[in-house]
Amino acid sequence: MTHPADQELIVAEESAPTTRCRILATAERFFREIGYQKTTVADIAKTLRMSPANVYRFFDSKKAINEAVVERVTREVEALIATIAATPGLSASDRIAEIVRSLHVDCLERCRENPRIHEMVEAAMTESWDVCRHHVDRISGVLGRVVTDGVRNGEFAAEDPTMAAQCVHVAIVRYCHPVLVSQYPNGPAPPIETMIAFLLRALQARPQRA
Amino acid sequence: MTHPADQELIVAEESAPTTRCRILATAERFFREIGYQKTTVADIAKTLRMSPANVYRFFDSKKAINEAVVERVTREVEALIATIAATPGLSASDRIAEIVRSLHVDCLERCRENPRIHEMVEAAMTESWDVCRHHVDRISGVLGRVVTDGVRNGEFAAEDPTMAAQCVHVAIVRYCHPVLVSQYPNGPAPPIETMIAFLLRALQARPQRA
Repeated sequence: MTHPADQELIVAEESAPTTRCRILATAERFFREIGYQKTTVADIAKTLRMSPANVYRFFDSKKAINEAVVERVTREVEALIATIAATPGLSASDRIAEIVRSLHVDCLERCRENPRIHEMVEAAMTESWDVCRHHVDRISGVLGRVVTDGVRNGEFAAEDPTMAAQCVHVAIVRYCHPVLVSQYPNGPAPPIETMIAFLLRALQARPQRA
Repeated sequence: MTHPADQELIVAEESAPTTRCRILATAERFFREIGYQKTTVADIAKTLRMSPANVYRFFDSKKAINEAVVERVTREVEALIATIAATPGLSASDRIAEIVRSLHVDCLERCRENPRIHEMVEAAMTESWDVCRHHVDRISGVLGRVVTDGVRNGEFAAEDPTMAAQCVHVAIVRYCHPVLVSQYPNGPAPPIETMIAFLLRALQARPQRA
C-alpha cells in the first residue's frame, strides 16, 4: 500500500504535465483570438482559475509559454516532412517536391486557422531566436538528407548537398514563412508547382564551368 | 518686363517642386531617426517652419509622403539594375548574377544606413500595396528581359523566361527584402554567391521529362 505522502507526490507529478498542457492550450487560444501582444499571463491564469504564481511555477514568462507553443508546432512540421523524407519507393525529386508542397500547405492552413500567427512567430524570432534557428536547421537537415540520397543515386548533381539543400530552403521562404504568408497572402509569387520544378532543375543540373 | 502678378505665379511654380523636395527630405530624415510610426506631419511642418496645412497642400497624408519616399528609392534601385541588364559584352548569366548581387548589396547598405527602414516598408506594404507590387513587377520585368536574352543566345534553357525570372526573384527575397534583411540580419542563409550559382544552374538546365 502507498504511503499517503507518496500518494500526494504521485498525484502532483501526474498532474504537472496536465497543468502544463492546459496552460499551453489556453495560451494558444488567447494568442490566436486576441494575439500574442495583448495576451497576459494574468488572462491565462484567470481562465484556468489559478493564480498567476501557479502559471509561473510552470513557465518563467509569457516568452517561455510562446516558446513551448512554437516548439510544439515546429516539431509537428518537422515530423511531417521527416516522414516524407523516409517514404520508401519515392525518388529524391518526388520527396523534395512533396516536402516543399507540404511545408507550403501546412503554413497556409496554420495561417488560415490562426490569422494572428505572425505575432507569435515575430515574438519567437525576436525573443527566442535559438528556437527558430534550430527549427530552420532541422528542416534544412531533412532536405539535406534527401539531396544526398539524390546525389548518391544519380538524380542530382549538387557538389555540396548540404549547401544545395540550404539554397532550396531559403528559396521557398516566401511560401513557407508564417509572417510572409499570413501578412502578404497576395504578394506576387509564381505558383508553388512552378517554383518546385525550377528548384529541381537546379538540383539536377551539372554545374557549368566558366 | 514681367507683370508683378505673373512674377509671383512663376516664383510659386518654381518653388513648388523645391517645397515638395524639402518636405520629402525632412520626412525621410524623421522616418530614419525616429521611425515611420512615431513621425507626425506636424513634426515635419515644424522643422520646415511651415504650417501642417501647407504640407497637406503637397501631400494628402503621411501615407502619401511615405509613398513618395518609397517611390524615389524603388526608382533608384530599378535604374541601377536596368543599367546592369543593358551592359554590353556581359553574358546573360553574368548580368543575372550582377543584378542579384546589386539588389542584395543595395538592400544591405540601405538597411545599415536606416535601421528603421522596415517601418517605412511595412507601412508601404500595408497601406500602399500597389507601389510595392509595381516595384516587384518592374524588377521581375528586368530579370525577365535578361533571361529571354539568355534563352535566345543558348545560355539558358528556361521554357517560360517570364516565369523563370519570377522564380529567381522570389527565391532571393531573403537577400533583398528590407524587412527580412533589416529585422533578421543573422537569419540562416547560404552566402549570396552560392545562391546565385544555384539559381543559374536552374536557368541553364534543360528540363527533365518525367
